[in-house]
Amino acid sequence: MNPHIAPVELAKAYRLLNHGPTVLVSASHAGVDNVMAAAWACALDFAPPKVTVVLDKSTKTRALVEAGGRFVLQVPAARQLALTQAVGNMTLADDPDKLEKCGVTLFRIDGETAPLVEGCAAWLACRLVPEPHNQQTYDLFIGEVEAAWSDTRVFAEGHWHFEQAGPGWRSLHHVAGGHYYAIGEPLDGNAGA
Amino acid sequence: MNPHIAPVELAKAYRLLNHGPTVLVSASHAGVDNVMAAAWACALDFAPPKVTVVLDKSTKTRALVEAGGRFVLQVPAARQLALTQAVGNMTLADDPDKLEKCGVTLFRIDGETAPLVEGCAAWLACRLVPEPHNQQTYDLFIGEVEAAWSDTRVFAEGHWHFEQAGPGWRSLHHVAGGHYYAIGEPLDGNAGA
Repeated sequence: MNPHIAPVELAKAYRLLNHGPTVLVSASHAGVDNVMAAAWACALDFAPPKVTVVLDKSTKTRALVEAGGRFVLQVPAARQLALTQAVGNMTLADDPDKLEKCGVTLFRIDGETAPLVEGCAAWLACRLVPEPHNQQTYDLFIGEVEAAWSDTRVFAEGHWHFEQAGPGWRSLHHVAGGHYYAIGEPLDGNAGA
Repeated sequence: MNPHIAPVELAKAYRLLNHGPTVLVSASHAGVDNVMAAAWACALDFAPPKVTVVLDKSTKTRALVEAGGRFVLQVPAARQLALTQAVGNMTLADDPDKLEKCGVTLFRIDGETAPLVEGCAAWLACRLVPEPHNQQTYDLFIGEVEAAWSDTRVFAEGHWHFEQAGPGWRSLHHVAGGHYYAIGEPLDGNAGA
């Protein structure tokens, strides 16, 4: 495993999503792995940490989450822009070689059954909290974060270090149609007006 | 009213939140107005557009949303950093002059009962979609966006123009404890690897 990957304490896991990055959602069931992109993912609680993510009924990843009961949200880095765009626009249902064509390499960690995407900045391994009404009515899924990790070159000691890590490590923030913004410069809200 | 404010067509309203900005939540009931900051707000659907936002039970704004059934999510700009930090750290329950002390000026638009915060980049006026289980269990509120507006100096023709609008117009992305990032530079996901 990449020696830069280290656990993130659960009390600080929300910080991996708090700034609103577009994420990759991965899941596995019965030997089938898949990864999709999702801009509609959000922190939901601090302790235990929970997240929400919207998974359209057309996605194969959703079926894997429903069947397997687990998923991983990961924060892709700017140098994974093409990969992020590709997994968001190709479906495993039509293209069994989706992951290979999109340049996705998966790995497993610490007995987590859901696969993780190599090269990301951070990962949150989630247990699905079943809420059938939300899932059916709103395509809204809730997960409890049971473990989290970061690449310590960009998130360490509970803090993002985008400004030191180089432009390839910036998080991606999708607007629409393949138009993204990278996260930008730090601002200190405690510095006064 | 600020002559730069123009309606955003509902089909494109999700783009105001899609890149994950920290928002201000405003609401009004029985003559009481309030505004809070929320990093945990997210698009939920395209048509009709819906949003989610997490409103802690300790907040006065939540009580106004529950009583009045409406709220506005607005996207503050970087030059509103101090205001955003202030409304997120002061409560109307303890400080009846909160809004004045935080430098918030409110305005009304088009018969919308919830107040809007002057100087923001965009506004989404929402009708609460009552979901008592989500509200009680997860502090999770769903709104249907019934109208949206932007300041056309930074969002026009369905697109953000952060790169032309100047640094004071960048959206704010809170991580924790008053540490924010501004949104950064555009990246084209359709440009190839």
